[in-house]
Amino acid sequence: MASFHCLTFLTDYGLEDGFVAACHGVSSQIAPNTRIIDITHLVPPGDIRRGATVLAQTVPYMPLAVHVAVVDPGVGTARRGVAVAARNGSVFVGPDNGLLMWAAEAVGGAVRAVSLTNRELWMAEVTATFHGRDIFMPVAAHLAAGSPFGYAGAPISVTDLVTLPAPVSRVTGATAEGEVLTVDRFGNVQLSVTKALAEQAGITPGVTLRLRWADRELDMPFRRTFGEVPAGEVVAVTDSSGLASIAVNGGDAAARLGLRAGMPVTISLKDGKELLQGDE
Amino acid sequence: MASFHCLTFLTDYGLEDGFVAACHGVSSQIAPNTRIIDITHLVPPGDIRRGATVLAQTVPYMPLAVHVAVVDPGVGTARRGVAVAARNGSVFVGPDNGLLMWAAEAVGGAVRAVSLTNRELWMAEVTATFHGRDIFMPVAAHLAAGSPFGYAGAPISVTDLVTLPAPVSRVTGATAEGEVLTVDRFGNVQLSVTKALAEQAGITPGVTLRLRWADRELDMPFRRTFGEVPAGEVVAVTDSSGLASIAVNGGDAAARLGLRAGMPVTISLKDGKELLQGDE
Amino acid sequence: MASFHCLTFLTDYGLEDGFVAACHGVSSQIAPNTRIIDITHLVPPGDIRRGATVLAQTVPYMPLAVHVAVVDPGVGTARRGVAVAARNGSVFVGPDNGLLMWAAEAVGGAVRAVSLTNRELWMAEVTATFHGRDIFMPVAAHLAAGSPFGYAGAPISVTDLVTLPAPVSRVTGATAEGEVLTVDRFGNVQLSVTKALAEQAGITPGVTLRLRWADRELDMPFRRTFGEVPAGEVVAVTDSSGLASIAVNGGDAAARLGLRAGMPVTISLKDGKELLQGDE
Repeated sequence: MASFHCLTFLTDYGLEDGFVAACHGVSSQIAPNTRIIDITHLVPPGDIRRGATVLAQTVPYMPLAVHVAVVDPGVGTARRGVAVAARNGSVFVGPDNGLLMWAAEAVGGAVRAVSLTNRELWMAEVTATFHGRDIFMPVAAHLAAGSPFGYAGAPISVTDLVTLPAPVSRVTGATAEGEVLTVDRFGNVQLSVTKALAEQAGITPGVTLRLRWADRELDMPFRRTFGEVPAGEVVAVTDSSGLASIAVNGGDAAARLGLRAGMPVTISLKDGKELLQGDE
Repeated sequence: MASFHCLTFLTDYGLEDGFVAACHGVSSQIAPNTRIIDITHLVPPGDIRRGATVLAQTVPYMPLAVHVAVVDPGVGTARRGVAVAARNGSVFVGPDNGLLMWAAEAVGGAVRAVSLTNRELWMAEVTATFHGRDIFMPVAAHLAAGSPFGYAGAPISVTDLVTLPAPVSRVTGATAEGEVLTVDRFGNVQLSVTKALAEQAGITPGVTLRLRWADRELDMPFRRTFGEVPAGEVVAVTDSSGLASIAVNGGDAAARLGLRAGMPVTISLKDGKELLQGDE
Repeated sequence: MASFHCLTFLTDYGLEDGFVAACHGVSSQIAPNTRIIDITHLVPPGDIRRGATVLAQTVPYMPLAVHVAVVDPGVGTARRGVAVAARNGSVFVGPDNGLLMWAAEAVGGAVRAVSLTNRELWMAEVTATFHGRDIFMPVAAHLAAGSPFGYAGAPISVTDLVTLPAPVSRVTGATAEGEVLTVDRFGNVQLSVTKALAEQAGITPGVTLRLRWADRELDMPFRRTFGEVPAGEVVAVTDSSGLASIAVNGGDAAARLGLRAGMPVTISLKDGKELLQGDE
């Protein structure tokens, strides 16, 4: 079995404790030649949906790797640990709570899975509260070092793996419905509306877009990039993941507009006229 | 002398400046084949006790390494810089202020030490305020690259090394006395009470535990893991370092209960009756 | 063309998203044997001056490297992307907005530059908002892997590169004028006054210094290091970058004194008498 040169790592462990480092140390002993790329460790504690979103949007830029992800509020309970092989040859290791599956989809979909039942790949001593260090990372490092995928545990059906409910994302007439998928460091608000879906609603660079959320609405230019509007102004763009996104040039759109992950939104052309004009 | 493939690094330098990177750069020039694992750089400024705690709990999971740790409020004053060899073959480099010794204990204890007096291993120019970059890291990198331990400076007795006062940790009758050792990212409150000590006081998974601190007391279930109580409820567990720990399932116990590092606490069975029942 | 073993990376991307990791992944695929040293990713969003300061003070401690820096509020607009070769053989890659040039100066000055016009070194698909991932990092990784410098794009004159206005820094009589260059994690306040300039104004370890800012003034000892004054007291030192710096031993000088980056300050000997005495 081929070994992996790269292992990636995403958690909600934070950076102020030694948790991430302990996992690096464990991997380093089992797979000393495997490089680790930390995706992020600042997923808000227990926020599986946020972890799944970041993982899915980052993994496509990674080399072939074993991807370890641990946002695991159910650690030590009956929830399974799993390894999932994706169509592109990469492997995902973590809790079976939905964290992994959007990312597996992003690289071709899950093709094979095992429940992590083979204790020979675990640490000799397993605690009830730190499966990242004691189970997920050692299993992942063994896979990275060349252990066959099936050696990690008992085969399970990929259709049995837990998946998160997909975010709302559809077009009705000239309106795209979605939700706030995530907010990034800059306060940019990423919507669950793909570029293709936005285009179905007539929304392309140059138009004026109407955003509706809660009981509010706001019109803003839809442009290619932030800098096409004056500093401090609201603008919509297609972001680097191909999703409609609300930003403030040089500012924090989420704070300005009170938008948070999970909030339902719609976008449409301002009063729909532009679409009609475009069709004439 | 054997070289080290791995160097670990813990500081209170934070991540917003270039301090950590400058140290990585220095190491990279002296020991280009040595991998660096960052333990944490978010020790609160000058908090030697917190740094010592995180280091001691993380180092046992590291490969054989040179461990560089710098939490050094006395930088540039008369306090010594030291290198300490531990029984398992690893080496610790940093200020002689107690930061290193709990970790050395955790891997077998200190067996040999030198004061960092050999300027040939330092940077050519040494500033008064950044010994991490100018002394500790270059010395550590030279040791990692194969310089003999004794070349770093004059031998000193390991009994002369500064050690921090051990945290309170004892059982009197059916009560375990301890203190809050540290609080992690999740707000879990780690006590200085080992699993063995807790067991002496009759505290094992399944019982109801009484925590006393300041002038307060609270009863809570002692369980194997957080998820065995409903979301939002307080629970005690044995944590991943083998210490009694107070948590809130999905929440922040430290914030909820007002517990902070250094506070004295006791734990016992709720009114002691369970212990009696268990003995009948 | 020689390849580089090391690539450094500084941005304002933060650590909570997958942006930094996506760039690591891109580099890892193009230049798998090149090690990445992260300088910092916590530059305040869009703060080019802060990024330039940290970069310039860190790069001198790095091995020969390709330095990628992205603080890029103008991403996707007409501002150029550039690669700049410095006299010491290192290469800088990033937006042409002044971010890179202080660092290039710190390693001998820019000797050659190209505008990043060769799309063969870019990602196949380039978004309008994430040139770090889509342009700067792949170009840098190709250069690190051995692509000739000139292959990155069309030659431009180094004198045409955008540079930031230099901070105020001069001596008039016995007074050194400067500004707050930056504030570090500890709250230490770095001034744009070099050790040499301070000495021209008679300021050397041992004297009492008078700091003036806004409509305030404060006298404080100028010492070699923080620990030479009692805990909690204000002290001036020459910092690890060779600049006059205001600190509080064990505390946060910026918060205590209300000093922020960009504020004009002067330092002089307390009422000038010590200088006269020193001359007698």
